[in-house]
Amino acid sequence: MSEIKNDGETHMDYEPTLMYGKYSEELGKLAKSHASHLKHEKTKMLQAPLAVSHTNRDVLKSCQRCYVTFKNCFLYYIELEWVFLLLLGITMALLSFAMDYTIQKCQKAHYWLYKELENFVAFQYLAWVCFPLVFIAFSVGFVHIVSPQAVGSGIPEMKTILRGVVLHEYLTFRVLLAKMIGLTSSLGSRLPIGKEGPFVHIASICATLLNKVFVRLPNSFENDSRQYEILAAACAVGVACNFAAPIGGVLFSIEVTATYFAVRNYWRGFFSAVCGALAFRLLAVWNEEEETITALFKTNFRVEFPFDLQELIAFGTIGIVCGFASALFVYIHRGIVNFSRKHIRVKLFLQKNRFIFPLLVSLVISSLTYPRGFGQFMAGELTLTEALDTLFDNKTWAKLGYIDESVLSDVQQGWKHPSVNIFVTLVLFIVVHFCMTAVAITLAIPAGVFMPVFLIGAAFGRLVGESVAALYPDGFYSGNNVFRIVPGGYAVVGAASLAGGVTHTISTSVIVFELTGQISHILPVMIAVLISNAIAQSLQPSIYDSIIQIKGLPYLPDIIPGKRKLYETVVQDFMVKSIQFVAYTSSFKDLQCLLQTSKLKTFPLVDSSTSMILIGSIKHASLQSLLDKRFKEIKEESDKHTTKTTVLKNEKRHSAGADLQDLGNRAECSMSHDAYANELLKEQVNFDSCPIDPAPFQLVEHTSLHKVHSLFSMLGLNQAYVTSTGKLVGVVSLKELRKVIQGETTTKTQTVKNTFHVGYDCTSQELVSLTYNEDKDVHESE
Amino acid sequence: MSEIKNDGETHMDYEPTLMYGKYSEELGKLAKSHASHLKHEKTKMLQAPLAVSHTNRDVLKSCQRCYVTFKNCFLYYIELEWVFLLLLGITMALLSFAMDYTIQKCQKAHYWLYKELENFVAFQYLAWVCFPLVFIAFSVGFVHIVSPQAVGSGIPEMKTILRGVVLHEYLTFRVLLAKMIGLTSSLGSRLPIGKEGPFVHIASICATLLNKVFVRLPNSFENDSRQYEILAAACAVGVACNFAAPIGGVLFSIEVTATYFAVRNYWRGFFSAVCGALAFRLLAVWNEEEETITALFKTNFRVEFPFDLQELIAFGTIGIVCGFASALFVYIHRGIVNFSRKHIRVKLFLQKNRFIFPLLVSLVISSLTYPRGFGQFMAGELTLTEALDTLFDNKTWAKLGYIDESVLSDVQQGWKHPSVNIFVTLVLFIVVHFCMTAVAITLAIPAGVFMPVFLIGAAFGRLVGESVAALYPDGFYSGNNVFRIVPGGYAVVGAASLAGGVTHTISTSVIVFELTGQISHILPVMIAVLISNAIAQSLQPSIYDSIIQIKGLPYLPDIIPGKRKLYETVVQDFMVKSIQFVAYTSSFKDLQCLLQTSKLKTFPLVDSSTSMILIGSIKHASLQSLLDKRFKEIKEESDKHTTKTTVLKNEKRHSAGADLQDLGNRAECSMSHDAYANELLKEQVNFDSCPIDPAPFQLVEHTSLHKVHSLFSMLGLNQAYVTSTGKLVGVVSLKELRKVIQGETTTKTQTVKNTFHVGYDCTSQELVSLTYNEDKDVHESE
Repeated sequence: MSEIKNDGETHMDYEPTLMYGKYSEELGKLAKSHASHLKHEKTKMLQAPLAVSHTNRDVLKSCQRCYVTFKNCFLYYIELEWVFLLLLGITMALLSFAMDYTIQKCQKAHYWLYKELENFVAFQYLAWVCFPLVFIAFSVGFVHIVSPQAVGSGIPEMKTILRGVVLHEYLTFRVLLAKMIGLTSSLGSRLPIGKEGPFVHIASICATLLNKVFVRLPNSFENDSRQYEILAAACAVGVACNFAAPIGGVLFSIEVTATYFAVRNYWRGFFSAVCGALAFRLLAVWNEEEETITALFKTNFRVEFPFDLQELIAFGTIGIVCGFASALFVYIHRGIVNFSRKHIRVKLFLQKNRFIFPLLVSLVISSLTYPRGFGQFMAGELTLTEALDTLFDNKTWAKLGYIDESVLSDVQQGWKHPSVNIFVTLVLFIVVHFCMTAVAITLAIPAGVFMPVFLIGAAFGRLVGESVAALYPDGFYSGNNVFRIVPGGYAVVGAASLAGGVTHTISTSVIVFELTGQISHILPVMIAVLISNAIAQSLQPSIYDSIIQIKGLPYLPDIIPGKRKLYETVVQDFMVKSIQFVAYTSSFKDLQCLLQTSKLKTFPLVDSSTSMILIGSIKHASLQSLLDKRFKEIKEESDKHTTKTTVLKNEKRHSAGADLQDLGNRAECSMSHDAYANELLKEQVNFDSCPIDPAPFQLVEHTSLHKVHSLFSMLGLNQAYVTSTGKLVGVVSLKELRKVIQGETTTKTQTVKNTFHVGYDCTSQELVSLTYNEDKDVHESE
Repeated sequence: MSEIKNDGETHMDYEPTLMYGKYSEELGKLAKSHASHLKHEKTKMLQAPLAVSHTNRDVLKSCQRCYVTFKNCFLYYIELEWVFLLLLGITMALLSFAMDYTIQKCQKAHYWLYKELENFVAFQYLAWVCFPLVFIAFSVGFVHIVSPQAVGSGIPEMKTILRGVVLHEYLTFRVLLAKMIGLTSSLGSRLPIGKEGPFVHIASICATLLNKVFVRLPNSFENDSRQYEILAAACAVGVACNFAAPIGGVLFSIEVTATYFAVRNYWRGFFSAVCGALAFRLLAVWNEEEETITALFKTNFRVEFPFDLQELIAFGTIGIVCGFASALFVYIHRGIVNFSRKHIRVKLFLQKNRFIFPLLVSLVISSLTYPRGFGQFMAGELTLTEALDTLFDNKTWAKLGYIDESVLSDVQQGWKHPSVNIFVTLVLFIVVHFCMTAVAITLAIPAGVFMPVFLIGAAFGRLVGESVAALYPDGFYSGNNVFRIVPGGYAVVGAASLAGGVTHTISTSVIVFELTGQISHILPVMIAVLISNAIAQSLQPSIYDSIIQIKGLPYLPDIIPGKRKLYETVVQDFMVKSIQFVAYTSSFKDLQCLLQTSKLKTFPLVDSSTSMILIGSIKHASLQSLLDKRFKEIKEESDKHTTKTTVLKNEKRHSAGADLQDLGNRAECSMSHDAYANELLKEQVNFDSCPIDPAPFQLVEHTSLHKVHSLFSMLGLNQAYVTSTGKLVGVVSLKELRKVIQGETTTKTQTVKNTFHVGYDCTSQELVSLTYNEDKDVHESE
């Protein structure tokens, strides 16, 4: 029995090491549950009949030993980073594949229902429309009940998190559940929304959970930096598993989430993304969808003469138009969101009737795509994936405008209309999808933006390609050979440049190469993407930055190089000079006052309020626990004191024999109780037991704004203290910095300064609460 | 006439704005030369016969006006970043194309000579061997005379420069000239060296020169940050123009040069690289080498079934072997360099006889490749480019070991040998090239490492591919189809993974896709590259880091995550406590003493040597000029003083009439002169006219090593001051940090500490010179 006990102790040994670190609580719980599990096992064994044979006991013993050895081994390997990343990649591939499978089944069921009811037009329409309604209603309801954090793309939030801000309750299992189920059902409804943004979020949650469950790192810093690194890798995996595009996935995730990127983290993303992409495609092979590993939307363009030099002009035009279109898209999206926010009646109505807007949108969209109604003019029958697959086709559809049926495959018949020109179909498809997508991604469901935008771009590219093919039906001559136009190549260029413009990324070009399995159009794609990016960036922020602005997430914008004034600004000009601080000489009363009035997360600790020499910083929570402990002590002591006083009074009363004074005495007694407590609170705080950060980030008054900006964005700082010869003279917070950079006038900055609470003055309660209100959007955990 | 004068004034107006900034001097000169040019024109016109007709004058005037307008326009546009980047891209493409053209001509001439002398074996051998000898001798001599900085790859130095260290005289026109001509002639000699590393250097020089000549930015900071950004872009262009691989070029340059990468710089690299790659390929089209823009080493692998899943094992094996091989390569390279450095006799001999070693190596290499000698067994006839082109071929060469002649093209006949197995040829090719390359890149010529390593990898991949094809001559079955093995695909995988392993980069995979124009083998390539990287990184530094170590360039290595001790180290433990500083209360005497003994670039300025409150930092040069100014003043004053004294003495002498005392008086006079000067030097320094950096980077004693490392590598710091309540208590320099991280023992750090000079104590001269010696490798400019 002693051996098993030893094993149990081995387990218990984890506890001290586990108690460090950020996740000490959870890990502590975990260790305890392991321990209790073992205890349980032990008890069971003790309860077992004593007559149990030696053999049985040995078997049990060795089983236990095996289990522990296996667990230790497992924990050892999972701590190796590459095993962790491998596991993450495979997990994400499985999730992605399972979701794709379910979504496909839903969409097939939808289409099957539509086909079955071919003879009853009214019912058919009803079925076509109601099917998505049910899915959307479920998605909205489920997400709202389980976790509202699951709404939207997730990339803006991940960008904020990777910048160093801790968004509370954003990477939990609840959110994972809500996001996965919500996303599956909303994608199953054929709404024009994407999967890649939510998948980045899902991958990040998976990575965090895996890290929490399996990894025990004693050092808090090590854990923090590891957390950051695996989140960066997770973002890459999220994109990579979606498109089976490891390289593009890594680059895209870097572009949309990072400001400064540590090159040493590069391999993590690649490794995990390759594992994910490999597993994702292997699953397709094993599921007998594919013969071997190939690209997702494989194209088969001519390699020996991919395009003529003259076509570069057309490709450039695609880039220009896509640049303007993507700026328009971001503008419209923000317009819709702001409309519903600004008009308070609309806002209240939508808040009360949570389901109305999504269902209305779903109704309109599915009515529009109804294949026997308006849908026949815009390939409404096809799902996003099918549409994309057909747009990348390397045959020319149009001969003088009408589709040549002989070149179309079964699925491509969706684009055909007996009497309508293919150009009209494409234009309608583009316009309707453009509007639908902009509205759909504002709904309160998990929804990405990349895929629908990519599709619209592809359709636009195909339109241009078909037009050029119609203009030059004989193609271009090169030497003795004639090379026809390949409109599919235009579709690839269009897709990359619109998606690149909307997201402000260049790596969409790599994603299209990986998606199509062909790199022959590299230069046209790069040129169009760069042009589109240049135009979009000069007109509007990226869709993700736009969402960050709308949601008011704490993100630091870049300094625009042109603004000369910003180069001359120094810390002195914009730091907050009135600081809330804790002094070594502070009393508990001061502390209580400070904690009641301030909502800051960390306070600077100074030598004394006169010298103001900065010693370190203390977290709000640590101070609170210090105060709580003191209150407990006071309560105990004052209880003793009260008893003593009461005894004294009682003695007095008895000696005086004045029964009437009883009431007055009681009052006096309670008063003296408060006074005594107050007296105790006036004692100086002892900070010995309090964890102090001895090296909070410090700046001096003459540090330039540009330097501060680099420091904040590189190191992910939220605030920094300004010292002058060791004296604390000011604070620079992320919010202040953001305001200065966004060029809000100095007067405005002044007002903000006023909202900061001076010293320990308890009177300006409402000013502090104003500060708090401004901070409300930021869910910072301790 | 007044109008022309006005134009002249417009020109002169530039001067004040031009006088700011880092390049003020050059730009000032430029403006002056323009002004003098105009003056010259004016004088000419004044000298012109007065009878000149009005029409003539008007023409001249309008010409002048046109010229000025054009120049203004040009300067305006070149300051726009994208125009600058476009110009940079096109310039580099032109240079790359011109160099390729010349190199090709040289190689053709070599081959032609060899063919012409077919009937005279001895002469033929002599020609084959002497041709490269001449080229190498020229290259060695030219580079040595014009600029020895042009030797080697250039990537290690660029990595150091982009880290924030200023290498003196590294980006000048002299170096450009030496590098370009040296590189062309050494590549023309058929030596197995690459072009990409030197080209990164060339691109960086071009960018710096373009920036210097055309751009006038008033703000020094803006200029510095712009300088950094364009250098990063230039590195990308350098790689991109070489391979016509824009995406891979950007990623490769980021991986080999950056530690932290600012995502906002991303587009610059891409834009410039695309311009470069486009121009580079367009030149090929216009030169009628190509019909249209396609990949450089275009492959034509089967797309519908690129590889069977079972082949992944073979691909993985390639990755493993390439990983070990690349570690071995780096080890051998370092071994060769260290051998010639450690053995002082060898070193002295080589230094004296600069040409011996390169010529010997060239002789051996060209003897080995002589196509009628040993070269026939290792495809010695082919140039690097031809060999690579044939290795990527998508036909299977070997049928049971011997080359099937019917599948070979003309060039591919180089691999054929009537009696020798193709496997033997490939093995010989790999082994000989492996050794030749390792030796060739140590020569004192401009030489890159990427291309030859890439080629060796391709040959190894082809070897594995041919072996698998020989093992499975019928290929793999998939359903009803049979798919043969594609050995060319293996060659692609091998090339990427060996190059990736040697340079520790993942982006080689992207480069191969762009080089071959096919992305079908993405997963095998990625897997092999990742495996190769993992092995190589755990065994040896990358070739570039190895060169950085050999050359002793000031570069900060990464912290190895495993070392727990490093996480617990704080600044206090390793900072240098004995500091050389300047105090506000310092006298000129102190200053003189300090400047004579210390070679530090910047000194901290403190309040007084007792309080030690840090006020800012001052550059060595500023202090020196302050001192020089004072000396000048003293000289003037003491001259006056001497005159006065002499007059006094003379009066005395005359009154005493003692002519014999003349000599003694003179001595006395000069003594009092020195004493007087000394007296003047004891005055306190006035720092008002001295530029002080008010916000040097500060740390506190408790800052962790990890934080310091991040700060140093992100911000490119060279040193930081440690303060405690505003008092300067220590200094952390890059060198110290490097030593701590590389795990040198504390005792060693202690000795280093001792070499630092204490306060103003002038006695420890030799200790300081020791410090200087250690610093000697670092060519930091002021």
